[in-house]
Amino acid sequence: MAPRRFTAPVVLPADPSCSVLRDGVVDVDAAGRIAHCGPAAGAPPFEGPVTALPGILLPGLVNAHAHSPMVLFRGQGGDLPLLRWLHEVIWPAEARLRPDDVRTGMMLGSVEMLRHGVTTSAEMYFHGEQLADAVLTTGARVLLGAPIIELPATDWRAMTTAVDRWIDADGLRFGPGQRIELGYGPHSAYMLPEKALRAITESAVARGALVQIHVAEAAAEDAAQRAEYGSVPRLLAEIGMLDGRVIAAHAVHLSDEDIVLLAAHGAGVAHCPGSNAKLASGTARLAELRAAAVAVGLGTDGPASNDDLDLWQEAQLAALLARLSASDCTALTAADALLLATRGGAAALGRDDLGALEPGRWADLVHVDVDDPAFATGLDVPDEQLLANLVWAAGSRRVRDVWVAGEQVVAGGEPTRVDRRATQAAVAEAATRLRG
Amino acid sequence: MAPRRFTAPVVLPADPSCSVLRDGVVDVDAAGRIAHCGPAAGAPPFEGPVTALPGILLPGLVNAHAHSPMVLFRGQGGDLPLLRWLHEVIWPAEARLRPDDVRTGMMLGSVEMLRHGVTTSAEMYFHGEQLADAVLTTGARVLLGAPIIELPATDWRAMTTAVDRWIDADGLRFGPGQRIELGYGPHSAYMLPEKALRAITESAVARGALVQIHVAEAAAEDAAQRAEYGSVPRLLAEIGMLDGRVIAAHAVHLSDEDIVLLAAHGAGVAHCPGSNAKLASGTARLAELRAAAVAVGLGTDGPASNDDLDLWQEAQLAALLARLSASDCTALTAADALLLATRGGAAALGRDDLGALEPGRWADLVHVDVDDPAFATGLDVPDEQLLANLVWAAGSRRVRDVWVAGEQVVAGGEPTRVDRRATQAAVAEAATRLRG
Ligand SMILES: [Zn+2]
Ligand SMILES: [Zn+2]
Repeated sequence: MAPRRFTAPVVLPADPSCSVLRDGVVDVDAAGRIAHCGPAAGAPPFEGPVTALPGILLPGLVNAHAHSPMVLFRGQGGDLPLLRWLHEVIWPAEARLRPDDVRTGMMLGSVEMLRHGVTTSAEMYFHGEQLADAVLTTGARVLLGAPIIELPATDWRAMTTAVDRWIDADGLRFGPGQRIELGYGPHSAYMLPEKALRAITESAVARGALVQIHVAEAAAEDAAQRAEYGSVPRLLAEIGMLDGRVIAAHAVHLSDEDIVLLAAHGAGVAHCPGSNAKLASGTARLAELRAAAVAVGLGTDGPASNDDLDLWQEAQLAALLARLSASDCTALTAADALLLATRGGAAALGRDDLGALEPGRWADLVHVDVDDPAFATGLDVPDEQLLANLVWAAGSRRVRDVWVAGEQVVAGGEPTRVDRRATQAAVAEAATRLRG
Repeated sequence: MAPRRFTAPVVLPADPSCSVLRDGVVDVDAAGRIAHCGPAAGAPPFEGPVTALPGILLPGLVNAHAHSPMVLFRGQGGDLPLLRWLHEVIWPAEARLRPDDVRTGMMLGSVEMLRHGVTTSAEMYFHGEQLADAVLTTGARVLLGAPIIELPATDWRAMTTAVDRWIDADGLRFGPGQRIELGYGPHSAYMLPEKALRAITESAVARGALVQIHVAEAAAEDAAQRAEYGSVPRLLAEIGMLDGRVIAAHAVHLSDEDIVLLAAHGAGVAHCPGSNAKLASGTARLAELRAAAVAVGLGTDGPASNDDLDLWQEAQLAALLARLSASDCTALTAADALLLATRGGAAALGRDDLGALEPGRWADLVHVDVDDPAFATGLDVPDEQLLANLVWAAGSRRVRDVWVAGEQVVAGGEPTRVDRRATQAAVAEAATRLRG
């Protein structure tokens, strides 16, 4: 791939202060990494193809917690209570899953996310080879947390060893533009014995691999674990898991001490406001997590329940709930919300090579065109108004073009590598069979 | 207009049980009202043009509380605290408003709503003639609550008399398909003396006109009024306003007694979950209002702050917040949310001729096509799954065609009567001047 320059009237690098660059330039090197980002005035000389974009250029969004193949079950079970939904709908359907169904589901989930400008997702789902293959096909990027769980039919030791072997064989990251990162997905402290969590920790720390784990999602399970362990963060700190790379998904019911522990160990949190509201689990303490400098990203959780993979809606909802919780309408700005969805997600996953337009990071780019009522007052407005128009009003609606590692994977709102309708049709066929 | 038949694989009449009709038929008479709605099997014989739609046909959504011309100020002031935002940004800008700016703003607001499938909005904004003219131009439907407020530069008596005269001259409803309904928009009990509320009540009741009023939006103003009047609902009951047609916007801070009063008098409520969260005002007691059989609709409030006019997002948010409030993930189903946005809004506005596909009601129709990942599992799924896919996952994204009083006003996602880009450009020009 030849080095390439992008220009746009507005570039949002997602630097820590959420700068708004006017007449910006982003240079991408031959490897698909960002070589330069800044205003056009003063940009280094460049010879090669220049793509002039008419709208807003920003980094690809990072979905920090998802089970995307569950698009196969989207909306299924309607509005049943959680336990009935799991027992009567989801688990029976998942029991019928074939490995290639996971590929089919992930293909659509990946296409859906790319069209929303979500270039990376952290996924916890079965049949990782199929999931990875789907992502390599659409051209997106994934951090796979291969599920490890103790059920009558599963063996956590074998599941852990399988991940060890996969990483040892293929490396932690592989694929063009290092699109795939492997890691461990122990479901939770309530679905695994402590010795399993210890063994997974040992495997992950030895390999520098990310651990994705559900923490303190629902009040009832959290209370049970507090009775047993003090708290799950305390347990994870004690067994050394927090000394490695860890992202705690949900983290709704945290004590002050839990937050201190997560911050002290540099653990990340995937805040899933939509899922936590829809399932009535509660609202994570985003303000306190941010105040403690915990790295926080946003997650959609599984689309069977949440119900789509639009991370912009999670950013909006994170702000609305943070403001309600604090009774303060300045509690989370549009800039804050945008950083959560980009740089914050990357940081929470321990990836300093994603989520911002900075030299050396991967050129995962999103172009939002502004032909929409949301931008009717124009681009020539104060920075905070432009950010409000983008984050609060436009959201995913005008994402038009998306690049991963410098390669265009969405053009004019449609995936470049796969046929969206064929992907939808494949899901229709699989979903019909899986409904049984 | 010749009578016309629509067919669609799925028709949602928004009847009280939120039926899902498979292979449905909707007949529209020459006046633009619904003549028949039901399954194709057993439909009356029909001669005339038949439009076969490939997706989901439902009634136009009803935005029960808006200040849509404020698209002129969308996102302006970014994330300032409420009072600074009003004093430093909005009121100075509104002071520069020319009457034709309101027309310009309402044109875009109306186009934006129509594209989201919102065919009716209840509007409280200045320069009602310009606002009505904009709506007659786009082809949408509006209930205008002409603002009445006591400020140094305003005269509530003159503002009330102006509405009296307008209604007496043009009638309560006028325009093709009765697109315009006139009414009174007393801002609130805290911006008007009691005698003004009494005079407005007299005018409105005599004319059968709707009163739109802000009630118990923010904790501080609500507390002040409770100290003065007991509560605003009690005041409005006492002066007879609740004996007429009234819609209380926001109604966040209600006591049990307030809810009983609203229910007993048949007053409507415009629930504005997005605005109330964004401005950190709180969450209205939706479950209790519904349990008391108060007619509840959904409102976006003004797009300067909320930030767009997408009522589907309010429906989603209403459910998320209701579930969080009740710690119950079955607290509001997709069917409940859809009814709030349609039939509920019409009922809250005292309009039994809108918001549902029933003979005699206006043929305000929305066609959602299903070429989207949200519907990948197909239309041939259980009713509750289809509703979940529509309400939770697709939202406004695939609204393709919209009719008001049987006339197509959106085709393929674009307005038929006005040029969207010209409408956006006019707003850009006005907004630039208004920023001063
Ligand atoms: Zn999860
Ligand atoms: Zn209002």
